[in-house]
Amino acid sequence: MRQIGLNEVEDIARGAALLGAGGGGDPYIGKLVTVGAIKECGPVTLLDPEEVPDDALIAPFAMMGAPTVLAEKSLSGEEYKALFDIMSNRFGKKIYATMPMEAGGLNSMLPIATAARLGLPMVDCDGMGRAFPELQMVTFTIGGISATPMGLADEKGNVVMMETITNKWTEDIGRAITMACGGSVSITLFPMTGKQMKEYGVKGIVTRSQKLGEAIRNVKNVTDKTPEEAFLEFTEGFKLFKGKICDVLRETRGAFNFGKVVVEGIGECKGSQAYVEFQNENLACYVNGEIVATTPDLICLVDTETFNPVPTDALKYGKRVMIVGLKCFPMWRIPEGIELVGPRYFGVDTDYIPIEERCKGGWK
Amino acid sequence: MRQIGLNEVEDIARGAALLGAGGGGDPYIGKLVTVGAIKECGPVTLLDPEEVPDDALIAPFAMMGAPTVLAEKSLSGEEYKALFDIMSNRFGKKIYATMPMEAGGLNSMLPIATAARLGLPMVDCDGMGRAFPELQMVTFTIGGISATPMGLADEKGNVVMMETITNKWTEDIGRAITMACGGSVSITLFPMTGKQMKEYGVKGIVTRSQKLGEAIRNVKNVTDKTPEEAFLEFTEGFKLFKGKICDVLRETRGAFNFGKVVVEGIGECKGSQAYVEFQNENLACYVNGEIVATTPDLICLVDTETFNPVPTDALKYGKRVMIVGLKCFPMWRIPEGIELVGPRYFGVDTDYIPIEERCKGGWK
Repeated sequence: MRQIGLNEVEDIARGAALLGAGGGGDPYIGKLVTVGAIKECGPVTLLDPEEVPDDALIAPFAMMGAPTVLAEKSLSGEEYKALFDIMSNRFGKKIYATMPMEAGGLNSMLPIATAARLGLPMVDCDGMGRAFPELQMVTFTIGGISATPMGLADEKGNVVMMETITNKWTEDIGRAITMACGGSVSITLFPMTGKQMKEYGVKGIVTRSQKLGEAIRNVKNVTDKTPEEAFLEFTEGFKLFKGKICDVLRETRGAFNFGKVVVEGIGECKGSQAYVEFQNENLACYVNGEIVATTPDLICLVDTETFNPVPTDALKYGKRVMIVGLKCFPMWRIPEGIELVGPRYFGVDTDYIPIEERCKGGWK
Repeated sequence: MRQIGLNEVEDIARGAALLGAGGGGDPYIGKLVTVGAIKECGPVTLLDPEEVPDDALIAPFAMMGAPTVLAEKSLSGEEYKALFDIMSNRFGKKIYATMPMEAGGLNSMLPIATAARLGLPMVDCDGMGRAFPELQMVTFTIGGISATPMGLADEKGNVVMMETITNKWTEDIGRAITMACGGSVSITLFPMTGKQMKEYGVKGIVTRSQKLGEAIRNVKNVTDKTPEEAFLEFTEGFKLFKGKICDVLRETRGAFNFGKVVVEGIGECKGSQAYVEFQNENLACYVNGEIVATTPDLICLVDTETFNPVPTDALKYGKRVMIVGLKCFPMWRIPEGIELVGPRYFGVDTDYIPIEERCKGGWK
């Protein structure tokens, strides 16, 4: 158990945006909302998963929608309470704690703001260890845990509660509601017991985000190696490419951002070209036409100077980026995980090969 | 108070399909579902609105979606109970009776099936006195009554409950859910008190449907006039056109059927052409390019031989039809009514002029 205050929020936002693998929402918006909540209501207690009783009711909190929309259409501040009230009424039980569903600039932050505003603790755990575009794409789905009852609330005051027969139906109906409400809504879903959270969750993800964020902040202060070496070492990242963004194709469709970013090599990558396909999150990275990394491993674009993560909705012509691959949470690599979030689900026509195997022999 | 059994159902279905003004779903499907429910569970008690206590909880029941979809994707039979359970839990009160929201082949019938299966009475009242394509288009919206809490259930077992800030938001979010669920869902909405029902409802609509259905069935037995004269007399209808369908344009979009039916004149209309535009229901009728009737007055197509109503999803090339206009419920003619369901709402560029004025001077 420890406290999350303003200093911690800064680092968590930066680190979680890296783990967002391009998605998970804008870290700037996430930080603004959370800093406001902590300033007003005080710091938040972060619980270690093992501190949560087995029978406690955990209600995760997130926003659903296209990141580009989330950046312009934020919360009213009334959503938390509306959602948690209907959820606790539904179970006839007080909510013990909240938690994030995914790592990402926005969706790592909002549960902190929720916890602050409602006076709840937050658990150091999520259901992805990264961000994914669809809500059934969590380790809890592999564990057979239902995404519903799920609550959705928009900033105007519309509230929806649903119970579905599968988690894919939750996604499909939830996505339709999100679009009807203007492209983004606040949600609480996957209500679960402490026991389920401990069995299937990605534990320690908030702390990991914070450490990554802290390391990125200090990357230039490392004395015995270059910032890039330091960054790759503490992230345990695989350097996939380095270059200048020369094209961004983007389309908001079905409350998702679909697109592709093309990068012209610079430095040791000069003469080569890479591109990354995304659906909110980065899905696959190609260098000179060859796949070098795919989902569920993390494909992250970072600024070549600051090493700050660059989410898909902040991609801009001319920006210099390094493309880095990170190993995903091990549960994603079992057959049920690959079925849920592997390359073929997203229409990338290749088997999943772990990034450490694809990158064996070093960068070409 | 009286009983609705198998004989009554037959006539109600036929008469309500006429009042459906082209929409309200397929009377054949509606009848099948209802006959099944009555055979299994016995007849249904129809309450006169004045028999309902002021504080009773009334929960209307309907299906939402494009009629062409409703005809192929019916109910599982579990929806009634799921919806009424969440509605009565929501109010902490037993539902006193159900009622239809609109007249129409399907949506007049389903509340009878619901009442039979749940052992509830049904009230002789609805919220339109005809059918309209969107759910906020009921007299209760004029009365300031909220469409929510509203429950939606599909035949697969997905259940959604919502509370919205306006009835238009209920429509928009409900329509999105309907589309996500495959184009049709069962709904309960506009939960209201007996007092509200009596103040704003279209009273006696089930009985009116039944009488119309009975009259259509007997139209050839009237001795002192032609069947057409008899039909126009008992419906108090305005004959707008008579001809052969020569073109049907139809598009299912946004869980609505949009389209236009073109009719070549026969008999006294020979040499003229008419067309009717629809969005589930018929919206406007043009003869030789001139508007002769618009929503909210009813524009109904009937078979020239049997005088059975022809819903928009049963329009077929070559069919001979008479186009008839009927006066709408008076509340639709006040400014709030015209705003909600007048021609301009549907993009028909004309002021509303009551059908009896448009047809003054007889048919040209």
